[in-house]
Amino acid sequence: MTVQELGIKAKKTQTFLSRVSTEDKNRALLAIADALENGKDEIIAANAIDLENGKKAGLGAGLLDRLMLNAQRIDGIADGVRQVAALPDACGKVVYEYEKDNGLKIQKITVPIGVIGIIYEARPNVTADAAALCLKSGNAVILRGGKEAINSNKAEVEIMQRALEGAGFPRDTVQLVEDTTRASATEMMKMTDYLDCLIPRGGKGLIKSVVESSTVPVIETGSGNCHIYVDESADIDMAANIIFNAKTQRISVCNACESLVIHSAVIAKALPAIKARLDEKNVEIRGDERAQAACGGIIPATEEDFYTEYLDYIISVKTVDSLDEAIDHINEHSTGHSEAIITANDDNAKKFMQCVDSSSVYVNASTRFTDGGEFGLGAEIGISTQKLHARGPMGIDGLTSTKYLIFGEGQIR
Amino acid sequence: MTVQELGIKAKKTQTFLSRVSTEDKNRALLAIADALENGKDEIIAANAIDLENGKKAGLGAGLLDRLMLNAQRIDGIADGVRQVAALPDACGKVVYEYEKDNGLKIQKITVPIGVIGIIYEARPNVTADAAALCLKSGNAVILRGGKEAINSNKAEVEIMQRALEGAGFPRDTVQLVEDTTRASATEMMKMTDYLDCLIPRGGKGLIKSVVESSTVPVIETGSGNCHIYVDESADIDMAANIIFNAKTQRISVCNACESLVIHSAVIAKALPAIKARLDEKNVEIRGDERAQAACGGIIPATEEDFYTEYLDYIISVKTVDSLDEAIDHINEHSTGHSEAIITANDDNAKKFMQCVDSSSVYVNASTRFTDGGEFGLGAEIGISTQKLHARGPMGIDGLTSTKYLIFGEGQIR
Repeated sequence: MTVQELGIKAKKTQTFLSRVSTEDKNRALLAIADALENGKDEIIAANAIDLENGKKAGLGAGLLDRLMLNAQRIDGIADGVRQVAALPDACGKVVYEYEKDNGLKIQKITVPIGVIGIIYEARPNVTADAAALCLKSGNAVILRGGKEAINSNKAEVEIMQRALEGAGFPRDTVQLVEDTTRASATEMMKMTDYLDCLIPRGGKGLIKSVVESSTVPVIETGSGNCHIYVDESADIDMAANIIFNAKTQRISVCNACESLVIHSAVIAKALPAIKARLDEKNVEIRGDERAQAACGGIIPATEEDFYTEYLDYIISVKTVDSLDEAIDHINEHSTGHSEAIITANDDNAKKFMQCVDSSSVYVNASTRFTDGGEFGLGAEIGISTQKLHARGPMGIDGLTSTKYLIFGEGQIR
Repeated sequence: MTVQELGIKAKKTQTFLSRVSTEDKNRALLAIADALENGKDEIIAANAIDLENGKKAGLGAGLLDRLMLNAQRIDGIADGVRQVAALPDACGKVVYEYEKDNGLKIQKITVPIGVIGIIYEARPNVTADAAALCLKSGNAVILRGGKEAINSNKAEVEIMQRALEGAGFPRDTVQLVEDTTRASATEMMKMTDYLDCLIPRGGKGLIKSVVESSTVPVIETGSGNCHIYVDESADIDMAANIIFNAKTQRISVCNACESLVIHSAVIAKALPAIKARLDEKNVEIRGDERAQAACGGIIPATEEDFYTEYLDYIISVKTVDSLDEAIDHINEHSTGHSEAIITANDDNAKKFMQCVDSSSVYVNASTRFTDGGEFGLGAEIGISTQKLHARGPMGIDGLTSTKYLIFGEGQIR
């Protein structure tokens, strides 16, 4: 089946999905959760083929671990689907109301976007997660996962489609692109007649290619060159503790801290304390000249370092003489994901939050909290680093559009 | 100055704009309104050059009329700017709040998008309108109008920049691309480092080219192949009255009605009544076979007709046997702008509103109401026909993004 054929089939589900009730959507989600649990053996067998192919292809241990599904992980995926079922419906909310002098009543309500395409890499858990979020928000979805997970994805989607049919839904509500060549991704990016939105999830290369080539509207997710600024008035212990957490709790994630900005008035005191904590995990620190002077064992940083999302046990340090300089440095080098200020000064906190142009701006907390679950959204389809439509952690509300309903009695203009 | 240089200058205004108060923005807007009124002679003199060039270039009467500025029109433009000043601020609204068990407080607030690019055609009134809406929502704007209006636009922007400086704002908050070749538009579409959003306003060709070529996120506006469905239970007089208004009150606009869908049970009665009204303005009616059989003087319609936005005294007619068939026909052929049902049946009205996938769906009223002013938004930057970010009439709320603010006391994950 070509990707366009999948698109045509997805469009055909729209008549059904536009009429579906919250109860029916939840019923379908619970059926999917049960089916995934009951289909555990089928999924694990398919996953075993992917793992073997992956080993043959020389995938690294980290990638193989992300690819691996076992009974426990499948139970976790099913529970995730049940949590999505338990969320309030994101559609049908009245977000604006207006009554004209002529008696015309105008309502703006939330509605599904329509057909959503998701292009992702070798994470078979994304398959059911993304399908559940799209279904909950009344959307059809076309999933295009990486070739490494193709057998696992096929098994999951086949199980979900059977469950959908059992719940009275069109099976094409959730579809998988089985062609995992570059061509299928490229075709999706041009499929404006059938896709209303395309969400790339994965590494920088994937996201860049989708953003640059897609004529379908894209929600850019992911890359995070996150900064923590240590203000003149910062509690140094708190700073060291937060930085240790934000850098090392999980190094491969987009909300990990990649760069420190430290006020020159406190760097001589702060940097050694921070380094002492980071040394526990052998984090390499690359700093500018003043950082190197303030503390032993700092490697020289290049300008390139300040633009780099390491996703590794490495962090850069920039010294500044003022809050304004810190804000400008961050706005110049960050990817607009998550940034934090450590300060005891409320005015400085306020200014930092107002002027740093990122999706999530913290005072005195770790950047690691940037996540749909942590922010109370229930679940997350991704973290948007663009400014249109959705910004930051994006839950099911981000998978809705709006529609104006206008109630008249013959009014003309 | 290259477009990129304008982009760099616009980015430099962000530090100022991120700190600016509602009062200061309103003060600047009122200064701009006064300056435009006081600069009337300067603008009219510049406009006279455009009009003369336009006549030499053989522009049609309609285009020349849209290009023309006189004292009254400039007063109207200035009043529009004052109305924008009077609107409540769209930024700084709390749209979501959450407090975690660990004491972390999370707020999601509305913020400016950043730098907005607007590509438009020969309408010099758009220049001040768009600048005012962007300024009110805290954004810098780069305006790229059509070559026909370049002298008028230069005069307006020069006056606005002087007023901005007088009000303590950076003059680069509002900038004009003086190069009106295709190259400058193409450059804007690729300027992802400096533009956060691009809004094309104008004809189908312009919008298509921006949507297909831009790597900057686009808000698609404009084209409207709007339908009115005459249900079995419709009040025929009301239908004829609404259709006459929606088709003929102003033919060149995107919310004008272009196509009728009529239930077969009433077409023999409805179409002659509708035709009698449309004949008052010599509207050409192109219908399918059953429409031709139902009423004399109907020209045969091709399938192409049902996809056509005429913007002329022409309308197409499709006959259907059910509400479902009407909904499917509309969803297949419309541009997702505005559609209406004329009915006395509440269930049918509800189903039509739920299932027709357009930005604005009416029951018993003219599609001509789709407009920011009519919908109570105060002013309008355009009518979005896409589903992401903003859909339908788009006021200053559509020119904002959001930001999560997270207040901690040392929390780590």
